[in-house]
Amino acid sequence: MIKAGIIGATGYAGNEIVRLLLGHKEVEIAWYGSRSYIDKKYAGIYQNFFRLVDASCMDENMHALAREADVIFTATPQGFCASMLQEEILSTTKVVDLSADFRIKDVARYEEWYGIRHASPQFIPEAVYGLCEINREEIRKARLVANPGCYTTCSILTIYPLVKEGLIDPDTIIIDAKSGTSGAGRGAKVDNLFCEVNENIKAYGVASHRHTPEIEDQLGYACGRELRLTFTPHLVPMNRGILVTAYASLKDGVTQESIHEAYEKYYNKERFIRVLDPSVCPQTKWVEGSNYVDINAVIDRRTNRVIMMGALDNLVKGAAGQAVQNMNLMFGFEEAEGLMQVPMCP
Amino acid sequence: MIKAGIIGATGYAGNEIVRLLLGHKEVEIAWYGSRSYIDKKYAGIYQNFFRLVDASCMDENMHALAREADVIFTATPQGFCASMLQEEILSTTKVVDLSADFRIKDVARYEEWYGIRHASPQFIPEAVYGLCEINREEIRKARLVANPGCYTTCSILTIYPLVKEGLIDPDTIIIDAKSGTSGAGRGAKVDNLFCEVNENIKAYGVASHRHTPEIEDQLGYACGRELRLTFTPHLVPMNRGILVTAYASLKDGVTQESIHEAYEKYYNKERFIRVLDPSVCPQTKWVEGSNYVDINAVIDRRTNRVIMMGALDNLVKGAAGQAVQNMNLMFGFEEAEGLMQVPMCP
Amino acid sequence: MIKAGIIGATGYAGNEIVRLLLGHKEVEIAWYGSRSYIDKKYAGIYQNFFRLVDASCMDENMHALAREADVIFTATPQGFCASMLQEEILSTTKVVDLSADFRIKDVARYEEWYGIRHASPQFIPEAVYGLCEINREEIRKARLVANPGCYTTCSILTIYPLVKEGLIDPDTIIIDAKSGTSGAGRGAKVDNLFCEVNENIKAYGVASHRHTPEIEDQLGYACGRELRLTFTPHLVPMNRGILVTAYASLKDGVTQESIHEAYEKYYNKERFIRVLDPSVCPQTKWVEGSNYVDINAVIDRRTNRVIMMGALDNLVKGAAGQAVQNMNLMFGFEEAEGLMQVPMCP
Amino acid sequence: MIKAGIIGATGYAGNEIVRLLLGHKEVEIAWYGSRSYIDKKYAGIYQNFFRLVDASCMDENMHALAREADVIFTATPQGFCASMLQEEILSTTKVVDLSADFRIKDVARYEEWYGIRHASPQFIPEAVYGLCEINREEIRKARLVANPGCYTTCSILTIYPLVKEGLIDPDTIIIDAKSGTSGAGRGAKVDNLFCEVNENIKAYGVASHRHTPEIEDQLGYACGRELRLTFTPHLVPMNRGILVTAYASLKDGVTQESIHEAYEKYYNKERFIRVLDPSVCPQTKWVEGSNYVDINAVIDRRTNRVIMMGALDNLVKGAAGQAVQNMNLMFGFEEAEGLMQVPMCP
Repeated sequence: MIKAGIIGATGYAGNEIVRLLLGHKEVEIAWYGSRSYIDKKYAGIYQNFFRLVDASCMDENMHALAREADVIFTATPQGFCASMLQEEILSTTKVVDLSADFRIKDVARYEEWYGIRHASPQFIPEAVYGLCEINREEIRKARLVANPGCYTTCSILTIYPLVKEGLIDPDTIIIDAKSGTSGAGRGAKVDNLFCEVNENIKAYGVASHRHTPEIEDQLGYACGRELRLTFTPHLVPMNRGILVTAYASLKDGVTQESIHEAYEKYYNKERFIRVLDPSVCPQTKWVEGSNYVDINAVIDRRTNRVIMMGALDNLVKGAAGQAVQNMNLMFGFEEAEGLMQVPMCP
Repeated sequence: MIKAGIIGATGYAGNEIVRLLLGHKEVEIAWYGSRSYIDKKYAGIYQNFFRLVDASCMDENMHALAREADVIFTATPQGFCASMLQEEILSTTKVVDLSADFRIKDVARYEEWYGIRHASPQFIPEAVYGLCEINREEIRKARLVANPGCYTTCSILTIYPLVKEGLIDPDTIIIDAKSGTSGAGRGAKVDNLFCEVNENIKAYGVASHRHTPEIEDQLGYACGRELRLTFTPHLVPMNRGILVTAYASLKDGVTQESIHEAYEKYYNKERFIRVLDPSVCPQTKWVEGSNYVDINAVIDRRTNRVIMMGALDNLVKGAAGQAVQNMNLMFGFEEAEGLMQVPMCP
Repeated sequence: MIKAGIIGATGYAGNEIVRLLLGHKEVEIAWYGSRSYIDKKYAGIYQNFFRLVDASCMDENMHALAREADVIFTATPQGFCASMLQEEILSTTKVVDLSADFRIKDVARYEEWYGIRHASPQFIPEAVYGLCEINREEIRKARLVANPGCYTTCSILTIYPLVKEGLIDPDTIIIDAKSGTSGAGRGAKVDNLFCEVNENIKAYGVASHRHTPEIEDQLGYACGRELRLTFTPHLVPMNRGILVTAYASLKDGVTQESIHEAYEKYYNKERFIRVLDPSVCPQTKWVEGSNYVDINAVIDRRTNRVIMMGALDNLVKGAAGQAVQNMNLMFGFEEAEGLMQVPMCP
Repeated sequence: MIKAGIIGATGYAGNEIVRLLLGHKEVEIAWYGSRSYIDKKYAGIYQNFFRLVDASCMDENMHALAREADVIFTATPQGFCASMLQEEILSTTKVVDLSADFRIKDVARYEEWYGIRHASPQFIPEAVYGLCEINREEIRKARLVANPGCYTTCSILTIYPLVKEGLIDPDTIIIDAKSGTSGAGRGAKVDNLFCEVNENIKAYGVASHRHTPEIEDQLGYACGRELRLTFTPHLVPMNRGILVTAYASLKDGVTQESIHEAYEKYYNKERFIRVLDPSVCPQTKWVEGSNYVDINAVIDRRTNRVIMMGALDNLVKGAAGQAVQNMNLMFGFEEAEGLMQVPMCP
């Protein structure tokens, strides 16, 4: 049994890490860190854990935590992990950072999109981008994993094989993404009130959302050159789930079969990626509560484009589930340990 | 006072025509036509009309209805209106058809996309496409108006000025549309059950939705040549509302200002189209229950694309409201009569 | 045309007063008062009013407002109206207070349930409880109307005739109420976030909700003696609507017919109260967006109880609509002016 | 490993049994019975099981199934199980019937409330009412278990200790229950369409719901005499969850402490019943996806009543979870095997 500490345990992603680790055979939770609820019973904040978690919230002292825990999950606002991280911590503890602090290799690009100074750029080179299906071997050896964003996980996994295999024109990629509201976090903001979200849909962060450079970087690595794409997120009146609908122009001669083969080539041994049968479109409900990503693509012959679709649970594969999957790889556990929840429907 | 008859009065669009006409000064409803509920009290099906509507449902005999009504609304499945229409009807009564039967000028194209034979192609030439803001003068003179589809109204109005003014490349248009569930109608289908729709989002009709040719035709007229575009509808867990997010590559030198000017040029005198302030994105909630369309566009300089957004209430401007607006034009009433509902929020 | 001022115009109830008054023939809005948004465009906060309201928010200076307005609506937290009200204001302006400050005649009882000191008890005696269907004549003559609470309006109107006619035992009344989330206001609280409310239902304020004494007082007046009842509110994942399910033991010999007659006796001339047909249960959807209250009752012969049910839109008949109805009475306007919205479904 | 067969596998309860059994160490599913989808891939109907279930649907031949399976779950309409059951089946296979066929001991009472003739009353005496926390020992020995209804499980567990200990007057019990829509099943009915349920709440089956006699019987056994109570179910716009709010008059001298002690007496060793801390009200979200029931009660001193509240997931503890729990008892497995899902929030 290893010991895990969670900083930001009272946010939605932190809460989901707790849910998953409670069913994990190799891990016990040693620290429920929270800025707002120190000394309060954790199960008093999330009553779903009543009688399952007895602990009270601790502070967010990452140094003290590093002495107690074998792995630290930071489910915190941008900048926190970078500001706290030190060699001393990394030399004793592994870190899975769910913020964006170590996702982007070019520090100037990070600072431009996030509008803050990076406090510990010296750790960026060693940080591994924790998209397990693509960087599995590097993750196994990592001390510091940058857990991908929710939109980015869904976008990259949906598009990656077609870019990698050169089936689409990378300069034509447009990603139209739709997310449940838990992605907006548990902060008390008017925009996230029930009455503002329910019976409503809107785009936000148009042409400016921070997940854009992250997707561009990773797909750029896949095709071997820089690319620029359009990414538009939308807020949907549901708790969980991200659906990505992505568009690109096909290279000459690409068929429905070659697309399916590309997906199969990269994903047919992947436990958590399900390439759906022809003509079946992903739905977020079919992955709810689970670590699966459902993917498919349809060719629009009239316009010579492909419509790629991917669905995941933003709190599981889009955050906590992927973090646990990364931890499993880093510690040599069975990769799917604690992650075999069957999707819940309805 | 004129008399109106509604065929398909017990569907969601028909029900919404009733709601709007009850507040209309120039119209009384003479016929609530329904296939399934003949002789049943209309207010027993839609109890919101309890004590407001005393009538019982009639059959769908369009010939008998034509002798009683000055205007007939057909809110019926594809093929019905075409199969019933005759010169005798049109010579005594005006018809607003909410189905697709008379929207597409090329009968072969209609038959290909809808998979049925058109029963009265002789009326297609005279039918006017009832998008009031674009075809106002023709509508005033029409006997037969083809009321546009919900997705198409939103898509066309959102994109039209930029195509018409040549600001975007028509071959790059991609429309990603999101609709509330009332657009799927009131038929008892498993796919539209609460538990199947709630906490879920999916694309459907990918690369094959029937509103595609309708949008292509109208935008083609605007730019003076045929075009092909990609259209992807999604089902969103809300009752009402359509949000269109449309993408296109900009022609050289197009600025945020020139885009705004294009919208203003075509819409600044339009009562029901609201071009939003810079950086404000449309939300379906802000038009709920009303005949407004909210529109805006944002330039993505990094990719030289424009993201166009439009929102409307699919049952009002996307169906019944537009039908009433068309009727107002056809009978010389004040165009906004019966349509000044203030959007309801939350 | 009279001039109206709204204090608390940026809350949900204030926003709904605006929606209704925009369609009112006799009133123009002269003052959009707000504590949080002074000098900001009102339509920038509620974009549904874009192009319909050009004004910016004013402060909440009730004295200055009294010099400009013929009527003031205070849609403000408990204590505000009582703390601001003075004879000088009431001598020039009529006031409809949507808070609880003047609803309870016994000031000690008010202070006990609300936990604050009443700042102007001298106005309590003249304040009229603004339940139009019961106190119509007093309202016509009032300077100060205490607009009833949302739960209380629904509860009282549902139970009143049966208490008044002595058909039920007043000591057995239990009210189980369910409300949409707009009743909780627009304050940024974690408990009202979309993800906390959606896919959830809970009771709150059990045996302690502040609407309890208000219901008890009014039903007590109806039966001529004090009574105590149990009231339990619940939070439901929807924007609008209150459903009250109330229980009481029947007096001997009471039949379904005598109950129906009691409702008819008090309500058959009431425009906004719809006593439904036998066996039809009220649904909140059937009154959404309107000023109607739908009511019915079913006898449970096995237990000799009656189950009384009432449904209204908490923002209309439960707040803003009733406030406008009160204003109409106070100024001698047609009682239904501005309130004839047809319920919107779906 | 035992083999399980499910008749009615394509309904919501059947689908949930599959979800739970996929994580059960001692059971494999041998038969996915369905009337409507014979020979179709089960995972094609519920795509959440894609790649997790490869089987196709079988028919509903209970006799053939009995030869293959060690346990049969019948998640079927009323009357089915009774019409199929024979000694031959029960002599080789254990049966957990999720319908009401064997819940009510008095066959005349069953036939009166359900309006059908009972086809095999000879099995009623041996059938054990499968409320595990109350009838655990009988269930262990049973061949035929009548799995309790969703409303009844929640109602009985919430009220049972107070009736059993004589703390409340059994003749004053009123149950106001609220259910998510999955309780209405997956049949294609207009009333259960998204647009009819969303943004709406209603009571139904008032004074006539079939779960009434079942609750009365079980609480009657607890207090040693017949009782009659009022039960009112409501339909809430959410997928899962039942909240019961129950009212009763207190016997003299009953305190908050004595109520808490009664709950503790019966439930403190129960794994799936969580008696909440004082003043914490149950919320359906806190048990979603899990087999827990959360319970609490508040005294209303002013009226000398107690308000009892219970929450569960209608598809888990209210149906499939309890069925699996019953199976575990019948086969001597660990009672919680396959049922330790942590509630999912949000």
